[in-house]
Amino acid sequence: MRVVLDGMGGDYAPKETVKGAVLASAEIEDEIYIVGNKAAIEKELNKNGYKGDQIKIVEANEVITMEDSPVKAIRKKKDSSLVVGLNMIKNGEGDLFVSAGNTGALVVGARLILGRIDGIDRPALASIYPNITGGEPNLLVDAGASSESKAGNMVEYGLMGSIFVEKVWGRENPRVGLVNLGVEESKGTSVTKDAFQRLKASDLNFVGNVEAREVPKGACDVIVCDGFVGNVILKLTEGVAMSVFKLVKQTLTKGIKNKISALLIKKDLTQLKNAFDYEEYGGAPILGVCGPVVKMHGSSTSNAVKNTIIKGLPYAKENVVDIIRHEMLKVQELIEEDIEG
Amino acid sequence: MRVVLDGMGGDYAPKETVKGAVLASAEIEDEIYIVGNKAAIEKELNKNGYKGDQIKIVEANEVITMEDSPVKAIRKKKDSSLVVGLNMIKNGEGDLFVSAGNTGALVVGARLILGRIDGIDRPALASIYPNITGGEPNLLVDAGASSESKAGNMVEYGLMGSIFVEKVWGRENPRVGLVNLGVEESKGTSVTKDAFQRLKASDLNFVGNVEAREVPKGACDVIVCDGFVGNVILKLTEGVAMSVFKLVKQTLTKGIKNKISALLIKKDLTQLKNAFDYEEYGGAPILGVCGPVVKMHGSSTSNAVKNTIIKGLPYAKENVVDIIRHEMLKVQELIEEDIEG
Repeated sequence: MRVVLDGMGGDYAPKETVKGAVLASAEIEDEIYIVGNKAAIEKELNKNGYKGDQIKIVEANEVITMEDSPVKAIRKKKDSSLVVGLNMIKNGEGDLFVSAGNTGALVVGARLILGRIDGIDRPALASIYPNITGGEPNLLVDAGASSESKAGNMVEYGLMGSIFVEKVWGRENPRVGLVNLGVEESKGTSVTKDAFQRLKASDLNFVGNVEAREVPKGACDVIVCDGFVGNVILKLTEGVAMSVFKLVKQTLTKGIKNKISALLIKKDLTQLKNAFDYEEYGGAPILGVCGPVVKMHGSSTSNAVKNTIIKGLPYAKENVVDIIRHEMLKVQELIEEDIEG
Repeated sequence: MRVVLDGMGGDYAPKETVKGAVLASAEIEDEIYIVGNKAAIEKELNKNGYKGDQIKIVEANEVITMEDSPVKAIRKKKDSSLVVGLNMIKNGEGDLFVSAGNTGALVVGARLILGRIDGIDRPALASIYPNITGGEPNLLVDAGASSESKAGNMVEYGLMGSIFVEKVWGRENPRVGLVNLGVEESKGTSVTKDAFQRLKASDLNFVGNVEAREVPKGACDVIVCDGFVGNVILKLTEGVAMSVFKLVKQTLTKGIKNKISALLIKKDLTQLKNAFDYEEYGGAPILGVCGPVVKMHGSSTSNAVKNTIIKGLPYAKENVVDIIRHEMLKVQELIEEDIEG
């Protein structure tokens, strides 16, 4: 496999990106193409003492920043690391694209440059969602590629998420759940009620409606919702968890006795906080486009870059894009009805 | 003021409800009418040694259960404590209705029996939302009365919430925020983008879009969102916070050293957990109906009942319903456009 890495995207690029590539190269056999400013990347490779030929540089001299408007950036910055990298996937010069750059630009770029898989109405941005009770994380689809989704789109999200979790994470028969107001079939908006019936009619392992309360407890492997709700779930989880940690920390450091306690358990609390450390889980896939694309957090460190590369490889190796293309045929009639209506 | 209390609604009725009324009567001068089964309520009053005449019993011999379908229950169970109590408000025999019963039935009953305030398209169920960083709680509107809301409805939510927070909680010039994907004006669905412009054009203290991450940190006094998103925010906050507390507890009790730490800080952690104790804050108002109605949690204890009665009184005393009726005229053109379109 040939991994194409956006060398310039993200808050700590190219330093952490290049270091992450070097770390990954020690653990995998696959080639890594770092796209970006040649001099800057070479400098970082040298700093890391890299002398092999597993990592190669592909020159691209523009950078899409976090402030750039996605559509405009993709259209204008043809020589950006993001556009050049996606074109390599399109042209068969690479098998997996990994970027910590502008999320909107990556989603738009993947749609425009790679194109949608036949039959897919809305490609989705998935996100890794922590299981706060200590189990394995789950996959949330859509994390914000579309702010409004129809019922048919939610079937797509369920299908694509299920295939990804099975093939890339190796989890058999993933449980697909629909975020809704209550567990009863009759609950929800017109869209979620309709989505419930379509998911129920599909071959997916649909476990029904899931209330938001159960989502952080790992109620399902694939969490299906529209992009607006997905965005609320991700950001609120972070906001609540971090606020609670802060409160716990304040409580622990309040009195003298508690200062002793705090020292005693500091290490354990750090481990606890790591449950929210998305770095360990690898990146978030863009699903429904004609090529494996993985987004990592903008502030990814070299460790996150390394993990995203290694854990993203099965997205390419297991032919997930082809499987989605093939499986789409089976659910086509569950999707078409409202997309074309 | 005459408080009308649903004596039969809630998991611990009439025991905790009656006890709560007795506790409240010791702190306020207002009359309390407990609606429900006379024998059962008398028995509880006796158990609490109540001998005064501040508390009166109004007989009603049906009960709307948590399993009842809201619309059907309101139409069929005419002699239920909920319907009888709401009719007292309608007929001017009471000034504030408080219930721990079936939320759906209470919302539907308030709409059907009391009616909507002129100009209000969608009455809303508000909910008290904790400020996890330690400050005062805020008000979330809508918490689920409508699962789908138009832009005009969000203006209503902002207006009603703002008046309630100012008049009942005594907080001046409340900050109204719109839950959205990002802080920029251009972010969101067609509905939230439209709602942003209307709220901006209103006289409310609109602080703009608020990302879900900032909501638990007290970003605004009135959190405006549609009922589906409101439901997700409330349930997810509870799910995440409780899961994190559980994790902290597990961490603290893991090793021997930590068991000592755990003992040392157990009391403080309990205080911390109380930040999530909605009981202290009083109930959640139904806004936009012709009469003050307050919903408390189904599992309310006597302490919660007492607080809800006492903290709900300004909803009646401050003429909040009349103020909403009057202020509605000022925002009418910001609402009509899409409601009637």
